[in-house]
Formats: sequence, structure tokens, C-alpha cells
Amino acid sequence: MLIVAEREIANLMTQEAAFDAVEKVFAAMAAGDARNFPVVREAIGHEDALYGFKGGFDRAGLALGLKAGGYWPNNLEKRGLINHQSTIFLFDPDTGKVRSMVGGNLLTALRTAAASAVSISHLARADARVLGMVGAGHQATFQLRAALKQRSFDKVIGWNLHPEMLPNLEAVATQAGLPFEAVELDGMVAADVIISITSSFDAILSADQVSPGTHIACMGTDTKGKQELDPRILAGAAVFTDEVAQSVALGEAQHAVARGLIKPSDITQLGAVINGTHEGRSSDDQITLFDGTGVGLQDLAVAAAVVDLAVEAGVAIEVDF
Amino acid sequence: MLIVAEREIANLMTQEAAFDAVEKVFAAMAAGDARNFPVVREAIGHEDALYGFKGGFDRAGLALGLKAGGYWPNNLEKRGLINHQSTIFLFDPDTGKVRSMVGGNLLTALRTAAASAVSISHLARADARVLGMVGAGHQATFQLRAALKQRSFDKVIGWNLHPEMLPNLEAVATQAGLPFEAVELDGMVAADVIISITSSFDAILSADQVSPGTHIACMGTDTKGKQELDPRILAGAAVFTDEVAQSVALGEAQHAVARGLIKPSDITQLGAVINGTHEGRSSDDQITLFDGTGVGLQDLAVAAAVVDLAVEAGVAIEVDF
Repeated sequence: MLIVAEREIANLMTQEAAFDAVEKVFAAMAAGDARNFPVVREAIGHEDALYGFKGGFDRAGLALGLKAGGYWPNNLEKRGLINHQSTIFLFDPDTGKVRSMVGGNLLTALRTAAASAVSISHLARADARVLGMVGAGHQATFQLRAALKQRSFDKVIGWNLHPEMLPNLEAVATQAGLPFEAVELDGMVAADVIISITSSFDAILSADQVSPGTHIACMGTDTKGKQELDPRILAGAAVFTDEVAQSVALGEAQHAVARGLIKPSDITQLGAVINGTHEGRSSDDQITLFDGTGVGLQDLAVAAAVVDLAVEAGVAIEVDF
Repeated sequence: MLIVAEREIANLMTQEAAFDAVEKVFAAMAAGDARNFPVVREAIGHEDALYGFKGGFDRAGLALGLKAGGYWPNNLEKRGLINHQSTIFLFDPDTGKVRSMVGGNLLTALRTAAASAVSISHLARADARVLGMVGAGHQATFQLRAALKQRSFDKVIGWNLHPEMLPNLEAVATQAGLPFEAVELDGMVAADVIISITSSFDAILSADQVSPGTHIACMGTDTKGKQELDPRILAGAAVFTDEVAQSVALGEAQHAVARGLIKPSDITQLGAVINGTHEGRSSDDQITLFDGTGVGLQDLAVAAAVVDLAVEAGVAIEVDF
């Protein structure tokens, strides 16, 4: 079997490879070729940790396995380790034998960024110029970096609950040669694309802060109770997601569905747009919204890609298991 | 992290170590210190395989992780590999980082054998002399070998749907210096301890084939629909199990509960007997029954034990992950 250590991922994995892997697996999901398994997520009663498994099988890409790990909130302060810890295991679908083990920390950040980038690629207006960021934490920088490649943006605007974190975004914009402007939430009306990536439990963005024709990628809501948008935004938008069941249960759409503003059948898998079985954006005035909840198949897809890259680069550790 | 390959397990793991590990974790479960997570088990639609995850956390033994793998029915014929394939992953409960990876095939056989042995140790009459085996497949030899150490048995009797497999059992008995006798099912009345380990979907053993005072370990029923015993046997017995919820859902007790012959509250965790909070067998005439369904915590427990043994023996592979 092959092992790719966490420390190797940064040298191996590119945004482009993550984009391709996530786009392909979203397409496979919508075509019925790939399926996520039920998610296990447990408070273990030790170190306040949440631990679990996200598995799946992509028959098209022949990726079978899971991401295991979770959230250890005391890691950083107590041990200088990052709080999110995960490892991805791939199995041979022909035999059931373990095939590879891959560090999952950076890959999780990259696949989450790739998901919003894929949504922008397929749903944002071709002439989108202003990219708005709601949220400026560590993950926001990944989302921004991947998004900037999808359109000819000429400006980045950003808002964060704690404005002192906005330089995180500014640094990425500057590196890409773009001006950055800190804005109030009302300033988001100027954005053609908005990415929300916070850990909020209340609506941040209201309907009048979103202009017609905007594409919104909601990437922060991945748990029951979390929320980033006024649910009326979803009622007025064409809503897409990675996995409908998860979007309804724990994604941004949970609130709009619970209030009867939209039905689960109003939500479309982004993969259907990629496959060309759904038109995607229907007009320049339409608001499109991607509810990115995060699925195990994304993890398997980027892990499978990085194993190939590691073999090419000669840094995969081979163990006779 | 440490890796213990499948090929090392046979040289490292002993029946005694498996017994101790399983006894301890059953006790921790009953004490509320260890908990199994929801089981994921999926037909993947490729190679007719069943694949899934059995995870858990033992706060007493600090074992966190999962067994991943499943059943690949074409492995043996197509590839000369065994059909059950599994791998056990242990995580550091303090940090969420992966700690070890262990081949799970032989360990699964040993932990299943250890479970019935632990039940015999705590529930069979002290003067049990005749051990009856219902089932004579590969796993049956493991159950028999582990059981023989628990009492001063002087004879092994056995039945199998295909009698030509009974020499499997005879070989183990002979190796232990005990006579073996092939019997009809009616002959099981002579047994003081019965282990059933088949893949039957219909009752094999009827109530009049079990004598008062017998201890029965039902080890074959681990799926909805499987069945080894007339459910009236459970109605007349003191019923114990590894995990009550699983016993009711997919263990031997599923049938007796479904027919209203016993209630879930009639079933006791074997760990309570180990801990001394339940008396166990209450008389020499009582039939005791252990419904062994198999839980992820057993896998974690034997894996943690074998990692220690591998480190001692210098055969654990260390990988800088």
C-alpha cells in the first residue's frame, strides 16, 4: 500500500488538480455513478472532540474509502497542532484491501475551496468582476485563492465579524494583483460573486445585500443550526448543492426548507449542471446559490489524485501491508 | 505512526491476549466507559461487495478508531484472497491524529472466538464437560480452540449441514487431546456448552435439543434475517449479549424480540457479569445464552493489544506520517 504524509501534500497538490477531482466527482454523483455513505459524527466525551467518518464509493473513478477524523478544539492551544485533524483511507474496490493512506488536513481545505470554485465556474456570470468574501478566517483564504481563477475579477471586497482578520484576504488579493476593499455588509451589493465561509449560527447576509445576477457560494453551514444567509435569499434563487439530502439536513438550505420557503425538489445537484443535464444559470439577473456541505467523495477524489502525484514525484511511501 | 501488517498478526497475537482485550472492553461497555458508533454497512454495487465501518471509543482503554472493510465474495475464486477483508485504524484520542494501522483479517477471527470464550468463562457451569459445535467452517475452528481453554472439557461433539467439513473440528479436538464425535442435532442434548457458528437463515437448533444448564454462545447471527436457534430457546434462557441494541436489531435475539417472546430489557450486557453488577448464571439448571453480534470496540481492543506486542517484538513498521 502507499502512504502520502501530510507534509508532502503542499508540494504535490495543486488547485487545478483539486478542481478537476471535485468537478469529476460531482458529475459522477449526479450521474448516479458515485454515492456517499451515511456520515458518522460523534462527540466522544474526551477533549471535547468530535470524531467520525465520511465514506463513499465512486464507481466511475473507482475510489472507495473514507475520511476519518474530526475536530479537537484544544489542539492548537495545548499542543500547537491544528484543531481539524483527518486522514483519508482508500480501498481497492476489487478486493477490499486497503490501498492508500493520505494526510487529510490540507486536502480538506483544498477540496472545500475547489467546491466553491467549481460552482463559480459553472454558475457565475461570465462577466463577473467583483468577488465578495463574507468571512476572513484561514479557510476563507483557500476559497478566495481558488475562486480568483474562475473569472476575470478586478476587485475583491470583504467583510468579517472581526475586521482585524481582513488582512488575511487582502494578502491573497494583493498576491493576485487585485485591489482589496473592506466593506460593510451593505457593500456586498457590489459583488458579482459572494463566498460565505463563516461559522455563524445566525443569518449574516440579508436579501437586500445581494444584487440580481449574483452567484453565492455558501460554504460555512455544515451542521444543524449553522446559518449564513437570510433564507429568503434561497427562496429567490436557483439553488444548487453537492448533495441534496445533506443540503436539506445540515446545509444552508435547512432553514429555507424548514420554513417552507423552498422544497428539497427545488434543489439541484451541481453535478447535473456539469453533466449538462441542467441548464444552470438561466439569465443574467438570476441569483444562483451553491450550498456546499462537504461530502466524503470529495475527500476520496482529491486523495486519489494526490496519490498519483506522489507516485510520479517519488514521495509515496510504499509499505508491504 | 505504527503499522502492523496482516502477515505479522499470527506470530504476535495469542488467544489469551485476545481474551483479555475482549473481556476488558466488554466490561468497559457495561460500565459506560466505552461506546460503539453507528455501523455503516453498504452494498457498493461492485463485485457484489459489502463495505463499511465499525467504530467506537473506549475511554477506559483510550482506544479510538474503526475497522473498515467488508465482504468481497469473489475474492477467493478470482484472486486467491480471503473474502472477508478488513483493516483497523487507531487514532490518538488526545489529538485526532492517526496512531496505527493494523491488518484486521486474523484479528477479526480471534476477537470473535474470544467473545464466545469470554461468555463461556463467565456463564458456563464450572463442571461443563461436553462441548458441542453447531457449524464446522473456518471460523468454527477458532471458536472451538478458544473455548477449549475455558473449562475442563473431556469431549467435543459437532454437527454441520455439510458433514464432510466436520474433520475441521476433529483436527482441533485431536490437537487438544480430546475425542470428537459427529452427532445429529438431537445429540446436542449431551452438550454442556454449545457454540453455534453458521451462516444460517433458519433456526437449526430446537428447544428440545438443548439440556437444562447448558450455556449457548450464538455467534453466527450478525445480520437481519439470519437465525440459528428456535426463538423459544431464548424465551427459556437468561440472555446476554455484547451490545443490546445490536442484539435486538440484527443478532439472534431479533427473532425472539420480534415475536414478543422476550423484551430488549430482558437482555443483559455480558460486561455486567464481568463487572460483577449482574450475577450471571443463577442456577445449575438455567440455560444461559450469549448473543454475540460483534462490535467495533472488540476490533479496536485486539488491535491495540497487537500494536503493543508488535512494538515489543520489533516488527511494527514506523512511518513518519
